[in-house]
Amino acid sequence: MGSQFGQLFRLSTWGESHGGGVGVVIDGCPPQIPLTESEIQIDLDRRRPGQSEVTTPRNEADQAEILSGTFEGLTLGTPIAILVRNKDHRPEAYSEMATKFRPSHADYTYQAKFGIRNWQGGGRASARETIGRVAAGAIAKKVIASHFAPTLEIVPWVESIGTLRSDIDPASVNRELIESNIVRAGDPNLIEPMIELIKATRADGNSIGGVIACVVRNVPVGLGMPVFDRLEADLAKAMLSLPATKGFEIGSGFAGTQMTGREHNDAFRMEAGRVRTLTNRSGGVQGGISNGEDLFFRVAFKPTATIMTEQDTVSSEFENTALKGRGRHDACVLPRAVPIVEAMTALVLVDHMLRQRALCGDESFQLQES
Amino acid sequence: MGSQFGQLFRLSTWGESHGGGVGVVIDGCPPQIPLTESEIQIDLDRRRPGQSEVTTPRNEADQAEILSGTFEGLTLGTPIAILVRNKDHRPEAYSEMATKFRPSHADYTYQAKFGIRNWQGGGRASARETIGRVAAGAIAKKVIASHFAPTLEIVPWVESIGTLRSDIDPASVNRELIESNIVRAGDPNLIEPMIELIKATRADGNSIGGVIACVVRNVPVGLGMPVFDRLEADLAKAMLSLPATKGFEIGSGFAGTQMTGREHNDAFRMEAGRVRTLTNRSGGVQGGISNGEDLFFRVAFKPTATIMTEQDTVSSEFENTALKGRGRHDACVLPRAVPIVEAMTALVLVDHMLRQRALCGDESFQLQES
Amino acid sequence: MGSQFGQLFRLSTWGESHGGGVGVVIDGCPPQIPLTESEIQIDLDRRRPGQSEVTTPRNEADQAEILSGTFEGLTLGTPIAILVRNKDHRPEAYSEMATKFRPSHADYTYQAKFGIRNWQGGGRASARETIGRVAAGAIAKKVIASHFAPTLEIVPWVESIGTLRSDIDPASVNRELIESNIVRAGDPNLIEPMIELIKATRADGNSIGGVIACVVRNVPVGLGMPVFDRLEADLAKAMLSLPATKGFEIGSGFAGTQMTGREHNDAFRMEAGRVRTLTNRSGGVQGGISNGEDLFFRVAFKPTATIMTEQDTVSSEFENTALKGRGRHDACVLPRAVPIVEAMTALVLVDHMLRQRALCGDESFQLQES
Amino acid sequence: MGSQFGQLFRLSTWGESHGGGVGVVIDGCPPQIPLTESEIQIDLDRRRPGQSEVTTPRNEADQAEILSGTFEGLTLGTPIAILVRNKDHRPEAYSEMATKFRPSHADYTYQAKFGIRNWQGGGRASARETIGRVAAGAIAKKVIASHFAPTLEIVPWVESIGTLRSDIDPASVNRELIESNIVRAGDPNLIEPMIELIKATRADGNSIGGVIACVVRNVPVGLGMPVFDRLEADLAKAMLSLPATKGFEIGSGFAGTQMTGREHNDAFRMEAGRVRTLTNRSGGVQGGISNGEDLFFRVAFKPTATIMTEQDTVSSEFENTALKGRGRHDACVLPRAVPIVEAMTALVLVDHMLRQRALCGDESFQLQES
Repeated sequence: MGSQFGQLFRLSTWGESHGGGVGVVIDGCPPQIPLTESEIQIDLDRRRPGQSEVTTPRNEADQAEILSGTFEGLTLGTPIAILVRNKDHRPEAYSEMATKFRPSHADYTYQAKFGIRNWQGGGRASARETIGRVAAGAIAKKVIASHFAPTLEIVPWVESIGTLRSDIDPASVNRELIESNIVRAGDPNLIEPMIELIKATRADGNSIGGVIACVVRNVPVGLGMPVFDRLEADLAKAMLSLPATKGFEIGSGFAGTQMTGREHNDAFRMEAGRVRTLTNRSGGVQGGISNGEDLFFRVAFKPTATIMTEQDTVSSEFENTALKGRGRHDACVLPRAVPIVEAMTALVLVDHMLRQRALCGDESFQLQES
Repeated sequence: MGSQFGQLFRLSTWGESHGGGVGVVIDGCPPQIPLTESEIQIDLDRRRPGQSEVTTPRNEADQAEILSGTFEGLTLGTPIAILVRNKDHRPEAYSEMATKFRPSHADYTYQAKFGIRNWQGGGRASARETIGRVAAGAIAKKVIASHFAPTLEIVPWVESIGTLRSDIDPASVNRELIESNIVRAGDPNLIEPMIELIKATRADGNSIGGVIACVVRNVPVGLGMPVFDRLEADLAKAMLSLPATKGFEIGSGFAGTQMTGREHNDAFRMEAGRVRTLTNRSGGVQGGISNGEDLFFRVAFKPTATIMTEQDTVSSEFENTALKGRGRHDACVLPRAVPIVEAMTALVLVDHMLRQRALCGDESFQLQES
Repeated sequence: MGSQFGQLFRLSTWGESHGGGVGVVIDGCPPQIPLTESEIQIDLDRRRPGQSEVTTPRNEADQAEILSGTFEGLTLGTPIAILVRNKDHRPEAYSEMATKFRPSHADYTYQAKFGIRNWQGGGRASARETIGRVAAGAIAKKVIASHFAPTLEIVPWVESIGTLRSDIDPASVNRELIESNIVRAGDPNLIEPMIELIKATRADGNSIGGVIACVVRNVPVGLGMPVFDRLEADLAKAMLSLPATKGFEIGSGFAGTQMTGREHNDAFRMEAGRVRTLTNRSGGVQGGISNGEDLFFRVAFKPTATIMTEQDTVSSEFENTALKGRGRHDACVLPRAVPIVEAMTALVLVDHMLRQRALCGDESFQLQES
Repeated sequence: MGSQFGQLFRLSTWGESHGGGVGVVIDGCPPQIPLTESEIQIDLDRRRPGQSEVTTPRNEADQAEILSGTFEGLTLGTPIAILVRNKDHRPEAYSEMATKFRPSHADYTYQAKFGIRNWQGGGRASARETIGRVAAGAIAKKVIASHFAPTLEIVPWVESIGTLRSDIDPASVNRELIESNIVRAGDPNLIEPMIELIKATRADGNSIGGVIACVVRNVPVGLGMPVFDRLEADLAKAMLSLPATKGFEIGSGFAGTQMTGREHNDAFRMEAGRVRTLTNRSGGVQGGISNGEDLFFRVAFKPTATIMTEQDTVSSEFENTALKGRGRHDACVLPRAVPIVEAMTALVLVDHMLRQRALCGDESFQLQES
């Protein structure tokens, strides 16, 4: 209960930070799609710790092994199981957490809910859990490209860290720039300041939050279901299911609440034979269904809970005490969260593509190309 | 696909704005809970159109009929079906919408997705669909009170309309004040300004957005599941599934992204034998699981799409044209959205309570009282 | 929990025997399918009580009202809600059941499970619940015919009543014969004996069981999923979810367990460019997936529990007592169960067709025509 | 799609016969239950090939590794992932199957459905897939015993092989006898004849079917949901989801269809303060819900498809040809199917126990003890 995502392209992630490993099973991947471990590894490498000087030094190669669901390089239509072993664990760094709850972490709530927790690392609440999501997302992107939307492009970037914030036009950001800088900033002018801010924050034993923005280009019209499974509802759930997230907004978002309808509405116009909108305050979704414009949304990440500073807390014996973080942690999760946001976006989209195909057939995708 | 919500307390809403009616079937309501139509009607009356001078004048009594699932005033444990007939429909007001797409409304995307739509009223995208949610939410609140958390209180209010915004302390808002003013403002100083703003906006043929804040008090510890079904993820999905919503944030939200961990973390302290936090930037949720502090979140609503002003659009024949809204619409959905946010909150909570009871038993609720 | 069926073509039935009515909501019906109430009524009339001298005399017209999901005679792709009011209820006939449990009926188990039950009629356990299934099945058949398998034909018939049993070749039964006799026998020689047996049984205040056989012709290859959602597994669940059923077998069934592999295996041969089997002991399913041969299965129905004979039982005060049935009941449910088996078969098939389309696309159906 | 089972105690199995391995992820297992690999191994050893002279000689130790979800010997409430590596594969034995479809096997239907298949071994259709079920079932039995029904006992046995059939009283069979003979016969007089029959069948290059009967003792009253998720419906689905099954019957089953209500009904009587039935033709279920009597059901297994005899078939080039089986196969699956039937029974029961606790609370179990 709680570790599955998607209706048709359905993943089950499993694994704790310290234990046999982490992984995912994907049930519902279409057959005959070329798939190799190296393709999955590309995204896992973008997520893995120790990838740069602004991430946690925990050194995990995070090598993925495909255990099932492929044959001679093609998917079979059967469940794809992927395993990543935990290697560089150091439970001894967490011995104090065995008896003290880290403030704003999941320690206390897991203990209260289940009456038990794996106190080594973050247990199930560790960001290592997202390995399964990223692996599944890599497959989702292949399904999207091969079956539904060959030119669709998901481009998330770090929009802000702390108060360092860019107002770069989403239309101008490009994936090459983002992936070529270690903070994954979308604004070239902010790369160095962001790197410096993260380094200074870590040196101070502190942590810092930020915002990831994401644009999705060349989205088919018609994705999303009426009422509960609106595309933005499923995106919101996907993003708020990530560790450390505190907010989601699409299109005009919270700022749009200050506008009037006359200012906010996106006028329709025909353009090159397609229905287009002159503005995109809708963020690509109207009535819960994609309208063919770019999806645009933002995700808020709070500062990492684990900091190298002594803080007030309580013990598992329910006495007041204090705790200073140990272990290896990101002072800022944003750079590594970019591929995770990308994966969750792909997972939401592929699921709605399969649902749309079930309900309205392949032709409902082809019509939208004209 | 798309009209069901909840894993265990599972609702299926149905119905279009103009048609036989709207309603809901709830599968998974525990037995032996006292339930009458009049209890449901209280919340439906808070949602219904025509309730005050700041809402749409469409005059619907929205009388609910319980068709099944109760016997001699008690729930049976079997599906509860609730029906509300559509009465005051005026399809003639929508004849122009038969051939023109309202900007920023669901007209175009429904047509593109399904190849057909009920153009009378908003069809399935109408806010009338939320009747089923509010009816189900009324039942959810009874289940919560009788089985799981007798003192739990869900208090949503209108925090802002346009740029009129209160910074009232969530701890100080009370339901009586909110329900005694027609805009459902939480700040007494903003009641009159908000009423005036809505009236002026409507007189101008325009519409306006705003933000609803919500606090939930006396929440049991331990609600929410690890990973995908975090409490905040399910709340985010619930809120973004509402018409006209563009954003969700919990606790410190987007503002919290500018803080450092040292500033943001909620220190634990023992208080009256319970684990408490000194601050509540977490918004009552840590690691996706409730920590016993108040839940606090915000939902962004864009301005209503249908305005009484001519706007550029395209026709169903895919030609450029213009359209001026007709029909009866809210210039501001916020006042009527308050009971809807309340209902969705109750539905998320009751579902997680049933899940928690399934997984950890009744005692997992009792322990948290000490 | 428990009143929903199907993954994609998903129905939620609701309603008790005595109450506001019974009905169904179908979420996941494709758009643009012609649908009228009269088409649904044809199947409801085949199911309704009072249709002939061998069924219960309870007189219900069972007129279906479509409340949502259609527009100008076509489905919208949104939930289809169907309502049938209860009219000819006579709760007074059940007053004794308020305090005594009918042997082999659901009275005791519902009371024990829920601590409450609607003792008027069978409550939720009444065969009236199947109205929603039959209505949904009528729609399922339209979806199958219009989108997936125009020539597919579901033909269930009464194979045996008591010890009266036909060994007619499934290939020879035809729907016209079956629907033209009131017991829905497949063997013309058994029509009169079966009618006489039912009449004699009723005159004796007794009831009698029997077997329904079902053949499905022109089934696309490829329906059914590996492992848990095998086509025969979903058919078995569908049939065992019907009131009074005690068994299901497909193809060679229990008799096939006495055979050796050499006798039992269905040899493959090419025939008119298609892969065919020379025999059909598989019953049209291999590895859980349809192979294009006729589906063939049987469903066992026990004798109706409610009989007009005094029987030993216990009271709701947990004292030994006796009870003689009253009310209006079928002495043999088989004739009316035929359209219900047909509906459940259609519901399983349409769901797997939508799943197959989601996973493998429309072309996976077209290929199988060659 | 298709590889998941259960609503709350939800398993996802994965893996092909020849590939990285097979396994299962269980989401929804309650926390704090003692669990070690050796407990799982006991049941896996009962299922594994090569365990006796009447099973396939494929030599797999089938050693299970728990990868997640436990900590210091207790379940965490998080997903439990279990991995079994494939070791003794011999794909070369299947090279002919790469281009020819085995009669009555899944080769053709998988190819037709997915356009691809892993032809080594049975791929996903291999009985190796049931390893995940058996491992999950071992855990389910621990949950049942520790939380819901300490004395509940699931006892399946081989009732018949071919025409060798016992009519032993279900009340008299005991697990020790069954597990102490290699065919897992329930009738001591049939052990030797059954062993001889299997040996002779194999020597002849043939295979043989049979029936497994199962009794479940000390079942709580109230398990099963009205309408679709009746206990017998979920059992039927569970059993028909097993490879080679062709039928399921509960209680009086097909034989009961020949009885009248007066003969068939189970009279209620008070006994030692409990509601009991004098007979048990219901098989422990009434109205889809357990009544506290023993569950009793039968499952039909056809003869294994792969035989060492040349049979007519077609090639993947769609030409008539012939094929003689190779590889290592069971001539009779019944002995090894016993622990699999047991596992599926446990999985259905634990899921309904969790659902019952969600809906009606822990007390609904305690009340039934009085």
